[in-house]
Amino acid sequence: PVEIWKKGGRLLSGLLGINIVLLGCALVSSGAFTDVSVAEREVLSFLSVLMGVCSIWMVSYLLWTSRHKNNLKLKDSHAGPIWLRGGLVLFGVCTLVLDVMKIGKSITLIHCESPVKIVHPVIQAVFVVIQTYFLWVCCKDCAQLHMNLTRCGLMITLSTNLAVWMAAVTDESLHQTHELNMGVNYTFNATAGVRAAGGGSHGCDCETHMCKTFQNGYYYLYPFNIEYSLFASAMSYVMWKNVGRVMSEDHHHTSHKFKTRNLFMGLICGIGVLVAGLGVFIVYKIEVDTEDSKSQAITMFYIFNITALSLMSIGSLAGTIIYRFDKRDMDNHKNPTRTLDVVLLLGAALGQYCISYFSIVAMVALQPGEQLHTLILVNSLLLIVQHTLQNTFIIEGLHRQPRTNNHHATELQEKGHSPHVYINPAATISHSNHSPSSDRKHESDLETKQHGTPTSFPEYNSKADWRRKILKEISLFLLVSNIIFWIMPAFGARPQFDNRLELHFYGYSMWVAIVNIGLPFGIFYRMHSVASLVEVYIMT
Amino acid sequence: PVEIWKKGGRLLSGLLGINIVLLGCALVSSGAFTDVSVAEREVLSFLSVLMGVCSIWMVSYLLWTSRHKNNLKLKDSHAGPIWLRGGLVLFGVCTLVLDVMKIGKSITLIHCESPVKIVHPVIQAVFVVIQTYFLWVCCKDCAQLHMNLTRCGLMITLSTNLAVWMAAVTDESLHQTHELNMGVNYTFNATAGVRAAGGGSHGCDCETHMCKTFQNGYYYLYPFNIEYSLFASAMSYVMWKNVGRVMSEDHHHTSHKFKTRNLFMGLICGIGVLVAGLGVFIVYKIEVDTEDSKSQAITMFYIFNITALSLMSIGSLAGTIIYRFDKRDMDNHKNPTRTLDVVLLLGAALGQYCISYFSIVAMVALQPGEQLHTLILVNSLLLIVQHTLQNTFIIEGLHRQPRTNNHHATELQEKGHSPHVYINPAATISHSNHSPSSDRKHESDLETKQHGTPTSFPEYNSKADWRRKILKEISLFLLVSNIIFWIMPAFGARPQFDNRLELHFYGYSMWVAIVNIGLPFGIFYRMHSVASLVEVYIMT
Repeated sequence: PVEIWKKGGRLLSGLLGINIVLLGCALVSSGAFTDVSVAEREVLSFLSVLMGVCSIWMVSYLLWTSRHKNNLKLKDSHAGPIWLRGGLVLFGVCTLVLDVMKIGKSITLIHCESPVKIVHPVIQAVFVVIQTYFLWVCCKDCAQLHMNLTRCGLMITLSTNLAVWMAAVTDESLHQTHELNMGVNYTFNATAGVRAAGGGSHGCDCETHMCKTFQNGYYYLYPFNIEYSLFASAMSYVMWKNVGRVMSEDHHHTSHKFKTRNLFMGLICGIGVLVAGLGVFIVYKIEVDTEDSKSQAITMFYIFNITALSLMSIGSLAGTIIYRFDKRDMDNHKNPTRTLDVVLLLGAALGQYCISYFSIVAMVALQPGEQLHTLILVNSLLLIVQHTLQNTFIIEGLHRQPRTNNHHATELQEKGHSPHVYINPAATISHSNHSPSSDRKHESDLETKQHGTPTSFPEYNSKADWRRKILKEISLFLLVSNIIFWIMPAFGARPQFDNRLELHFYGYSMWVAIVNIGLPFGIFYRMHSVASLVEVYIMT
Repeated sequence: PVEIWKKGGRLLSGLLGINIVLLGCALVSSGAFTDVSVAEREVLSFLSVLMGVCSIWMVSYLLWTSRHKNNLKLKDSHAGPIWLRGGLVLFGVCTLVLDVMKIGKSITLIHCESPVKIVHPVIQAVFVVIQTYFLWVCCKDCAQLHMNLTRCGLMITLSTNLAVWMAAVTDESLHQTHELNMGVNYTFNATAGVRAAGGGSHGCDCETHMCKTFQNGYYYLYPFNIEYSLFASAMSYVMWKNVGRVMSEDHHHTSHKFKTRNLFMGLICGIGVLVAGLGVFIVYKIEVDTEDSKSQAITMFYIFNITALSLMSIGSLAGTIIYRFDKRDMDNHKNPTRTLDVVLLLGAALGQYCISYFSIVAMVALQPGEQLHTLILVNSLLLIVQHTLQNTFIIEGLHRQPRTNNHHATELQEKGHSPHVYINPAATISHSNHSPSSDRKHESDLETKQHGTPTSFPEYNSKADWRRKILKEISLFLLVSNIIFWIMPAFGARPQFDNRLELHFYGYSMWVAIVNIGLPFGIFYRMHSVASLVEVYIMT
C-alpha cells in the first residue's frame, strides 16, 4: 500500500515525540534543579508509564508482523549492523544488572522508601528485555502496515529512550557532583547529598552492608545504561525513517570480505597504539587514586593521548589528500542509510567538540604556563582536529564507488565477458536523461579507461593500486586506534575530573553536566567510527 | 559550473560553522556563569573579530557579484520574502539605536571602562549596516562562483549571528535576573549587580543622568537585537542552502492576488480579537506595575489569552478536518523553500512548547487550587494545543496544489482553449515514467473532472467552493489573531515573570533563562506563521 502523504504521518508522529521529550525534559530538570517539591516519585512514575506504553506497543507490533512472511524487499539491509545490535545486547544486559541492584537496594530500604522505587526498576527491566528483543528482530523492517500507528509507536519508543537517557544523565551528574564535593571536603556530611546521589529520599539512608554494596555497584553500571538508551534511540530513529520505504529491486548486497593480507604497517602501528594505550590506561587507573602519583599519572595519560591523536590526525589528513587525487567516481546516488550514518557521525562528534571547547576556554583564561595547562590545551585542540579530519576522511571514503566493481569488471573482461558499464540498470536510464553530449563523453571515457587500463597504462594501474593500499593501511590504523579511544572513557578514565582544573573553573555542577552530556556521545562516536572505518576499508 | 560534490562543500563549511558556534557558546557561557576570570572583554573581542571578518567577506561578495548581470535562473524567488526583509530592516534600525546608546554610555564612563566597550558597538553598528544591505540585496541569490568560499562565508555569517544572539540572550537574562531580584529585595545594593546588568565592570557605575538614560534606554531595545540576529541567521541559512542551486526553466512565479471580497466572518472575528487584545494589552501594561491592581491585570490577561487561544484552536482544528475531505491533489514535488518554511515553523514552535511544559510542571507540582494556578495551567495547555493544531493546518495548506490552476483551466476551457493537464511539462514526463495504468486512470479522472465539472456535477462544485470559502475565512481569522499574539510579547508583556509563580518555583536564573531563550523563538514563530497563513490564504 503506497502512502498518499508520507510527510503528514511523519509530522504527526514527530509532534508527538517532541511533546513527550519536552515534557520529560521539564520534569527531569525541575526534579534536579529545584529545591521545591517535584519529587523523584513523579519523574519515576512518568518514566514507568512511558515504558509501559512502549512495551505494550512493541509486543503488539511483534504480534502483527509475525503473521507476515519475511519479504526481502521490505528489509533495509544496511540498517541495524551487527556492531549496533551487539552493543545493544551488551549494554542491555548491563542495564538489567543495574535494575536488579536497584531493586535489591529498594527492598532493603522498603520500610522508608516509596513503592515506586521498586516498581520503576521492575518495569524498566521488562522494558529493556522487550525492547532489546524487538530491536534485534525488527530493526531492519520497513513497516508497511498501519504506517501512521507504527510511526507514532516508534516515536514514543525514541522519546522514551531519550527521557530515560536524560534522567540517567541527571542522576549521574548529581551523584558525581556530590562525590567530587566529598573528595574535597572530607568533613562534608555524608547524608546531606543522598538525594543527589540518586539514592534514597531524605532521611532514608543505606545502613546495612548489603544495601551499600548495591548502591556502589550500580554507580559503575550507569554509563552502560546511558549508552543503551543512545543505541536504542538511534535504532528506533532508523526504523522510523524506514517506515513505508520500499527497497528497489536492484538492491543486492555485495558481499565484500575483510582481508588483511599484505597489510602490515597500518595494522602494526594500530596494534602498537592499542597496546601502549591499554598499558597507560591500567597504570592510570591504579595511580590516579593515590595522592602522591596522581599528577604523574595524569601527565602520562595526556602525553599518550597527544601522541596517539597526532598520529591519527596525520593519518586522516594523508588519507583525505590521497582521496583528492583519486580518480574514482563519486557515488552521489541517494542512500538514506549512508546519509544517516554521516549525520550520526557528525552529531556524535558534537559531544567531544563541546567538551574540548569548554576546556580550551578554561585553559586560556587560566593563563597557561604550567605543564599541565599546556598539555590539556594541546590535547583539547588535537581532539577537535582529529575528529574533524577523521570525519572528513570517513565521509570521503563512504562516498566513493566501491573499487571492487571496476576490478570485477576488468576480471570479467579478461575472461571474455562484455562488462556492463553500470551494474544498476536504473543508473543508465537516469543518466541518459541528462545532456547526451556530456554523457557520451563520459561513456567513452569509461570505455577507454576499461579497455585501455590493462594494456596501455600499466603504470597508471600500479599507481592506483599503490594509492589503494595506502588508503587501506590508513583505515586499518585508524580503526584499531579508535578502539583504544573507545575503551578508555567507556571503562572509566575521567581525566576531565581528575585534573580538577576545569572543575574549579566552571564550578562542579556545570562541568559535571557538560562532561556527562558530552562524553556518552563521544563514546558512541568512537564505536560508530570503528564501524564506518570497517566499511571504508572494505570499499577501498 | 556544475559542482562535482556538493556534500563536500557543505560538510566543510558546516564543520567551520559548528566550531565557531561551539567556541562562542563556551566563551559566552563561561563569561556568564563563572565567578572567575573570563572577562566580558574577551567575549566582546571575540565577537568583534567575528563581525569584522564577516563584514569583510560580505563586502567582497558584493564586489564579486556586482559585475555579473542578474540572471533570473540563479534567483530563488521564494527566498527572502518581503516580511522577512522588512523585519530585518526594522530590527536592524533598532539595533543601530541600541549601539548608539551603548557607545554613548561607554563614552560617559571612559575614565574607567576598557576601550573594547566602545570599539565593540562601533564594529557592531558597521556590521549591522553591511549585513542588512547584503541580505536585502543578495538574499535571493543562488551563488555559482567560488562556491566553497561562499558557503564558508555564509556559515561564518550564520555562526556570528548565533554567537551575537547567545551573547545578547545571556546579557538580557542576567540583567532581568538582577532586576527581578531588585524588585523583591528593595534593600539590595544597586551596585552589586552592575556586571550582571551587562553594564559597567566592577567599580565603574553610571552616575550622571545622561548615562542612566542610555542604560535604561537600551534595555528596551535588547529584544529587537535578539530578533535581528534570528532573522539574519534564518536568511543566511537559506542562502547557504541555495548555493550552487540552479532553478528549473519552468519555474514561473504565479501571481496570486490577495482579495478579501465576500469574506466577512473570518475578518470580523479576527479584528475583534485584535482590538480586544490591544485593549487588554494596554490595560495590562498600565495596571501591572501598581501593586494593588496587579493580580487583577494578570487574571484579565490570562482570561483573554485563553479565550483567544481556544477560538484559534477550534479554527485550526476545523480547517484541518476540512482538508481531510478535500479532493485536491497533494503537491509532493520537491520544494526546498517550502521544506525550510516547515522546518522553521516547527523549530520556532519549540520555544513556546518549552516554556509551556516547564510552566505546566511547575503548576502541577504546586498543586493547583487557586484561580491563578488554574489559569496559568489552562493557558499553557492551550498554547501547546494551539501551536500543534495551527502547525498542522498550515503545513496541510502549504502542501496542496493551488486551486487557481484548476479554476484557470476551466476558465480557459470555457473560452475554447484546450487545457493542459499540467502546466509544468516536466511533471507530465516524470509521471509517465510511473506505472502507466495508474497514470492513465489518473488522467482520465482529471479529464472527467474537468469536462464534467461545469455541466454534470454542479452540486459538487458548489460544495468545493463552499469548503474553499470556509478555509479562506479560517486562514484570515488565524492570520489576524496571530498578529496580536505577536504584538503582546514583542512589546513587552511578560506575564511569565509578573505572576511570580514559576519564578519562585524554578529560581530566578533558571526561569529567566528558559523564558529568554524560548520567547524570541515564540515571537519569530508568530511572524512566520502570519507569513505562511498569507500563503495558505492565497493558495486556497
